[in-house]
Amino acid sequence: MNTTTASLITSEELLAHWQGHRALTRRVIEAFPEKELFNYSIGGMRSFSGMVMELLGIGAPGIQEIATGQINPLNEHFEGITQKEQLLKLWDEATEKINTYWPQISEDQFSKVITIFGQYEGTTWSSIFYFIDNEIHHRGEGYVYLRSLGITPPFFYERP
Amino acid sequence: MNTTTASLITSEELLAHWQGHRALTRRVIEAFPEKELFNYSIGGMRSFSGMVMELLGIGAPGIQEIATGQINPLNEHFEGITQKEQLLKLWDEATEKINTYWPQISEDQFSKVITIFGQYEGTTWSSIFYFIDNEIHHRGEGYVYLRSLGITPPFFYERP
Repeated sequence: MNTTTASLITSEELLAHWQGHRALTRRVIEAFPEKELFNYSIGGMRSFSGMVMELLGIGAPGIQEIATGQINPLNEHFEGITQKEQLLKLWDEATEKINTYWPQISEDQFSKVITIFGQYEGTTWSSIFYFIDNEIHHRGEGYVYLRSLGITPPFFYERP
Repeated sequence: MNTTTASLITSEELLAHWQGHRALTRRVIEAFPEKELFNYSIGGMRSFSGMVMELLGIGAPGIQEIATGQINPLNEHFEGITQKEQLLKLWDEATEKINTYWPQISEDQFSKVITIFGQYEGTTWSSIFYFIDNEIHHRGEGYVYLRSLGITPPFFYERP
């Protein structure tokens, strides 16, 4: 008997959705002039590179942790990253890492309660949604930085 | 036989997730001083109230359209809205409308291809994710406006 429940969204679809967002974030990093990427700030906030390092500390390590069950503390600081090319290289490595570990997460796991980075309790899906939502949030902040620098950001709805 | 597929996230969970975000956005609207909500801008962008009107034009009308199948053109302009209280009232009405129409969307519908507002083709889930992601994006922009006004925004991770 065919009593399967339709899935609202599949695991593959969610990965592609996120990687679409991540490709857009990469283009926002690229849109910043080298200097302003690391130094520019509004209202006492971090530079956009500082926000990107937070995203690098969360996304790929978070997916690796969910896939393997091996918990590591959150690390949002990367030493010696002073150039756009270095940041983009870390971004691309994270892209690969997410693609590698994601298929190791079973669909059943998404509803299980976990303590991500040994610190934040929630379901697997809510943890992953946090990774994605937090990226969209900080990228939105980056859009204002770019606009205030007179630079037109990439279209929000274009996910290459 | 129990051959059901685990759903990555349920429809009820996705609604609660979005309404958590919407409650945070409401608190960001509240955090703006009355005047700056309507007039303040960085880098030639819209005021935060202008962004909120876009969100009001998309969220509840979009869910109503998905639930009923009745297509209406996108309307992001609301005449005569000049006070924070008016904007918050529209926000609360949208909250109710989303809660009313959401349960009328069946889980099967989420994977169906639709043309939202008669204009944008995609699956139902990708349309709804766009509503949510676009809200997070513009709210992130609002955070920079608040910071540059010397106002501490509500915590991103607090979803009342």
